[in-house]
Amino acid sequence: MLDSLNPPQLAKREAELGSRVANLQTRGQQLNMARGRPSPEQLDLANSMLALPGTVDYQDAEGIDCRSYGGIDGLPEMKILFGGILDCPAQNIVVGGNSSLAMMHDALVRAYIWGTSGNDMPWREQGTIRFLCPSPGYDRHFLITELFGFEMLPVEMTSTGPNMDQVESLALDPSVKGIWCVPRYSNPTGVTYVDAVIERLAQMQAAPDFRIFWDNAYAEHHLVDHPTSLGSILAACAAADHADRVLMFASTSKMSFAGGGVAAMGASAHNIADAQTKIGVQTIGPDKLNQLRQLHFFKDLNGLRAHMRAHARILKPKFDLVDDILQHELGDKQIANWSKPAGGYFVNLNVPDGCARQVITLTAEAGVTLTPAGASFPHGLDPNDRNIRIAPTFPPLKDIRRAMEILTLCVELVAIREHLRR
Amino acid sequence: MLDSLNPPQLAKREAELGSRVANLQTRGQQLNMARGRPSPEQLDLANSMLALPGTVDYQDAEGIDCRSYGGIDGLPEMKILFGGILDCPAQNIVVGGNSSLAMMHDALVRAYIWGTSGNDMPWREQGTIRFLCPSPGYDRHFLITELFGFEMLPVEMTSTGPNMDQVESLALDPSVKGIWCVPRYSNPTGVTYVDAVIERLAQMQAAPDFRIFWDNAYAEHHLVDHPTSLGSILAACAAADHADRVLMFASTSKMSFAGGGVAAMGASAHNIADAQTKIGVQTIGPDKLNQLRQLHFFKDLNGLRAHMRAHARILKPKFDLVDDILQHELGDKQIANWSKPAGGYFVNLNVPDGCARQVITLTAEAGVTLTPAGASFPHGLDPNDRNIRIAPTFPPLKDIRRAMEILTLCVELVAIREHLRR
Repeated sequence: MLDSLNPPQLAKREAELGSRVANLQTRGQQLNMARGRPSPEQLDLANSMLALPGTVDYQDAEGIDCRSYGGIDGLPEMKILFGGILDCPAQNIVVGGNSSLAMMHDALVRAYIWGTSGNDMPWREQGTIRFLCPSPGYDRHFLITELFGFEMLPVEMTSTGPNMDQVESLALDPSVKGIWCVPRYSNPTGVTYVDAVIERLAQMQAAPDFRIFWDNAYAEHHLVDHPTSLGSILAACAAADHADRVLMFASTSKMSFAGGGVAAMGASAHNIADAQTKIGVQTIGPDKLNQLRQLHFFKDLNGLRAHMRAHARILKPKFDLVDDILQHELGDKQIANWSKPAGGYFVNLNVPDGCARQVITLTAEAGVTLTPAGASFPHGLDPNDRNIRIAPTFPPLKDIRRAMEILTLCVELVAIREHLRR
Repeated sequence: MLDSLNPPQLAKREAELGSRVANLQTRGQQLNMARGRPSPEQLDLANSMLALPGTVDYQDAEGIDCRSYGGIDGLPEMKILFGGILDCPAQNIVVGGNSSLAMMHDALVRAYIWGTSGNDMPWREQGTIRFLCPSPGYDRHFLITELFGFEMLPVEMTSTGPNMDQVESLALDPSVKGIWCVPRYSNPTGVTYVDAVIERLAQMQAAPDFRIFWDNAYAEHHLVDHPTSLGSILAACAAADHADRVLMFASTSKMSFAGGGVAAMGASAHNIADAQTKIGVQTIGPDKLNQLRQLHFFKDLNGLRAHMRAHARILKPKFDLVDDILQHELGDKQIANWSKPAGGYFVNLNVPDGCARQVITLTAEAGVTLTPAGASFPHGLDPNDRNIRIAPTFPPLKDIRRAMEILTLCVELVAIREHLRR
């Protein structure tokens, strides 16, 4: 679009947009499109859980008194529920505390200090450890990787999953020990891994102690009525004779209460048994009452899915509005492209190379907080400086409308200025 | 006593006791005095908490919506409550998940991988690491130490705390990095550390990255109306210019629900800040709803202490019964001594050297499960084979009576047999 305007036209448009932004800067608005968390309306849907399990029903279906110690791997019904979410046999599930992120961290601790599966050499004794980081990805994964001092190798995210040519090539290096994956509605791109990607991840050559950290954070977080299915990475790994390659994680935090849910890990029997030898020393057991609370509320996988459809009814209009405004303001200008996810928590916006940081700064000056530039990349460095993560779940529709109008205004203004400068 | 009997008298008594035990062995009783957990009656006291916080009051006193993410260090009121329990400024508290044991484990993970306080050399790079283990002590502490491959140095437990001459001497070795302490109603001896021990722990010479793991598991678990006070280790360490030496832990698990409580760590501002740099990467935050639930129920430290007095009304008769039967059956026989604790969860019984394992085996055959012999010592090895941990909290009084009658019978029988053999 910019190429079709002559310099006077561009200057006029720049002046017009600049004046609108300058006007916004004086208003002191405070809008926030950075928070990847449920809205109060979504949380309200689970409010009845706040009085559960109630003063009488503190035993699970098998008669276990959930008020006391024990049950290191979780209540049987909770394991069944997570087995459904993670597409994993219930006996291969270990239920944890409130945070799947903490379970991923702990899995790294175990691999680092004691080795991945009993007999392997601990990673701490193997020199430099490298991790594959499909990017843009989840900043918290990269922060954990950085904390351990592992070298992060960015891998391109495509519309079907990570660029598998890159992954297969990099994984040949035995110092490459893992990959971070959000396989469904990937944070922030919204991509769901296709079967071919899952097959290649399972089959590729890699170190015996290479682990896929399969963070299925949005397993049940659909925006559409008929979501595409996600292939079973556990089955694919087993079929490829790499049964121990994958560790899968999920939690009910963004289904019940954020930070007040229950997390779980699913993996091969061997991996689970090995993890339990450490977890059983680390703690006397998880909070079974919160497991019981979730079970009383969700009942089973069907109940949980019905609940998530109610979430979708709140979220779909927000994502639609984001897309509408992007389409309306930028659709014919060829300066940006963005995702239209079928689930998850984010819309991924790409602006012209070298513009993301400027857009985010300008938007902040105009009253809209966005995720910091580069946050979705290892070390916070977006190599093309073009990626912007939009989080539409939390704000009300009127705030989203206003924030998106400001954002799109800033995108166009920065694009024109950058174009004029070149 | 045994010395005052002649051989025929001893043989007669042995035969009589042996016949009673043989009779018991045929009955198939199943009593258990091994479980260091609250009884259902204690748990019932907190049942109203099972419907808290309720469907409306999900904000804390400062208006924080506890249903959502955030609050990495805990709700302000929860920090105040734990500040009272741990005798620590509230701002030096970090609230965790449901398990204080897991918080201790995580503190070891941080010291091992990253060093104790930012700039220290990580323990993993310092060769053999040694830990002081006052014994008998808590088996779970020793299991964690073993998991990390640290060498455990047993230290004698006296009636005032660990033998400080031993501790001071051993701590001079810079490879000695820590000591496990249950300072109040120590598991299993019931000892509360006197001020002089606390002062010496704070003042002694030790490695800069030496840490006292101060597991105040029974801080509020009194059996008496007017408990002796426990000196402040944090203040003592600060006064001795070793402010970073101690990490303190507590939880409400044995106050509310076992495994369903909230845990916390208290330490110097420097230690807390350092821990937070790691914890903030590991998790998005703890379960604030369970904090709120506990706060709604206990209200404040006074409320919590009133609740613990109700616990004591249930537990005191159980501990009294254990002492009565020990006194009645073994009091004049000079073959055993035992603790009469003013709080905590255990009675510590010492039988003649070389007899504990036999007693526990014989008692099991007669239908009473006890904590495995040696469990309270590093690697499960009681050097004198004389220590038996009795856990009176869980069983009803009639079971305690029966179990203690069988136990005392077995103690006398084994003592006589051992005497005859020598």
